[in-house]
Amino acid sequence: MIKIAVDCLGGDHSPDANALGGLAAMRRHDDLAVVFVGDESAITPLLSDAGALASRIEVIHAPEMITGEDKPTDAIRHKKDSSMIRAINLLREDETVDALVSTGATGALVAASTLRIGRIRGIRRPAFCPILPTMSGGIVGVCDSGANVDITPEQLVQFAVMGSRYLESAFGIDSPRVAMLNIGTETEKGDKLRKEAFPLLSGAPGINFVGNMESRDLLTGKYDLVVCDGFAGNVLIKTTEGTALEMLKKLKSEINKSARYKLGALMMKDMLMGFKDFMDYQNYGGSVLLGCEKTVVKGHGASSREAVAVCMDQAYRMCRAKLNARIAESIAAITPAESAEQKI
Amino acid sequence: MIKIAVDCLGGDHSPDANALGGLAAMRRHDDLAVVFVGDESAITPLLSDAGALASRIEVIHAPEMITGEDKPTDAIRHKKDSSMIRAINLLREDETVDALVSTGATGALVAASTLRIGRIRGIRRPAFCPILPTMSGGIVGVCDSGANVDITPEQLVQFAVMGSRYLESAFGIDSPRVAMLNIGTETEKGDKLRKEAFPLLSGAPGINFVGNMESRDLLTGKYDLVVCDGFAGNVLIKTTEGTALEMLKKLKSEINKSARYKLGALMMKDMLMGFKDFMDYQNYGGSVLLGCEKTVVKGHGASSREAVAVCMDQAYRMCRAKLNARIAESIAAITPAESAEQKI
Repeated sequence: MIKIAVDCLGGDHSPDANALGGLAAMRRHDDLAVVFVGDESAITPLLSDAGALASRIEVIHAPEMITGEDKPTDAIRHKKDSSMIRAINLLREDETVDALVSTGATGALVAASTLRIGRIRGIRRPAFCPILPTMSGGIVGVCDSGANVDITPEQLVQFAVMGSRYLESAFGIDSPRVAMLNIGTETEKGDKLRKEAFPLLSGAPGINFVGNMESRDLLTGKYDLVVCDGFAGNVLIKTTEGTALEMLKKLKSEINKSARYKLGALMMKDMLMGFKDFMDYQNYGGSVLLGCEKTVVKGHGASSREAVAVCMDQAYRMCRAKLNARIAESIAAITPAESAEQKI
Repeated sequence: MIKIAVDCLGGDHSPDANALGGLAAMRRHDDLAVVFVGDESAITPLLSDAGALASRIEVIHAPEMITGEDKPTDAIRHKKDSSMIRAINLLREDETVDALVSTGATGALVAASTLRIGRIRGIRRPAFCPILPTMSGGIVGVCDSGANVDITPEQLVQFAVMGSRYLESAFGIDSPRVAMLNIGTETEKGDKLRKEAFPLLSGAPGINFVGNMESRDLLTGKYDLVVCDGFAGNVLIKTTEGTALEMLKKLKSEINKSARYKLGALMMKDMLMGFKDFMDYQNYGGSVLLGCEKTVVKGHGASSREAVAVCMDQAYRMCRAKLNARIAESIAAITPAESAEQKI
């Protein structure tokens, strides 16, 4: 049995999307148990048609909510009855709980997961690894997309290792092609961080480093994993999402300007809808926080029920594949014994 | 008279696009003189229908080409007969030459312009400021987009000042809204650089700083100028271009999958072509290198004749508006007298 805790507060469509998404995932996996954490009086009615699933369901009452306004360290200290902190404490204390899915505040989730769940031995800092679709029909992961803004070259190597194991375990990609985000493809390009990281990435065992890449190639399918600091990764992901969204909005508004355009669009309606779905990041699951001792998946704040279910699927696959054990093994192989000691 | 030197080697469509684009711009401005620098035997035939423009044309023979493969410092030292270096030396030595338009190698252009033309008093480093279209029908500038990868908070303030004067002078935007690219909009967000820069930007005279921005808002029209380090700016620009290009390619390939889609697309053809044009960065001119003592505009390597002409228009407007004098004045207002000394 895989047991996943679902933080039922903090998303735009919480608790409905979280509770119903959790149920949807349970229907897909016979060996999935779920602990719903949040306002019990709101969650219980949503689980009314659980039927036979009931035996695999627990509910923990934690009615307080952490928001984006809360300073992460304050939230951890003072909002002890929040759904997020209660869920994270559950992961820390209950060996049978394998993973957490949350659509709540990102900063608090990173801080609380790092401090309470703890890091995999040798990992400096956990990192986010969201997945995007490529135009060639595959996917590409980006690690880190925002958990760490000031990093070292060694951390970039850790991102490459964690992301590689993740893509292998959760998506079955063999020997993922890892590229370092840079301002040009030539070896000597970039700032101090990139110049120092390049030889480390080239020499690290357990990763298939193919060199530098430019951000314009993110969606082309040339790479499976892009490694970068969390600042650049955040810009990369949000620019991609923003450009796609703004283009679709613009296209829609242009179509609405003429009856002829509308008729043309009607003839392509199924394709245009498919195109919109294709570009919708929610269909590709949440942003996995790699490097904690237990699996943590951060769904987008705007996650729908189906988006939460996809996050659950992701967490389930990662647990089944024993991703964290694989990461620990790979990190041990690149970490000198004396520095494997965990340091913040 | 405004006199602009055109580097006629180094672009994908050089020298044709550069020579013909230069002529096209001359037809638009009666007081524009052009010095074409490159392989004279290739340029002269392209100018055969110059007619009455001939009196405003000079050609300088410099047949060597600097490529992206050349290390900038080596190129400056050894390729003295290259079109780029000859053109830059002309700007340095000839007071009557006001500006340079080049579609050649970026790294060499930045290095040679900085070293040979010299910087405006008080400017630490020149920075690129390309322009993108917004979905609300306006434009947005990004400074820096790649000339400086490791920067200080003070440089971010200089980018804000230079970019603001540029948008006022060349595009008539009053009191441009300046935002700092960050991973969130809250004041305390970001890495060390952003945290230190925020209060400096807030307190600097001569700029209308409106706070932090997320990259997903680049095209929404909320901001006139985005300031960032050259690494993040490069990611921002290339991700936007890459996403737009990949989406258009994907849309085209989807349309080609069915006769019905093709018919639908035919009914929207004019709109779709307009949409493509709208997203084509070439229509918005080159990336201006702000901070040198003379005007430098870098056109995209793939620039067409019309794209070169737009770069010429840009350079012309900047010279007419005496942009560099305005930048010098603004920089003097934010620079303590003792540190106004130019340092690399």
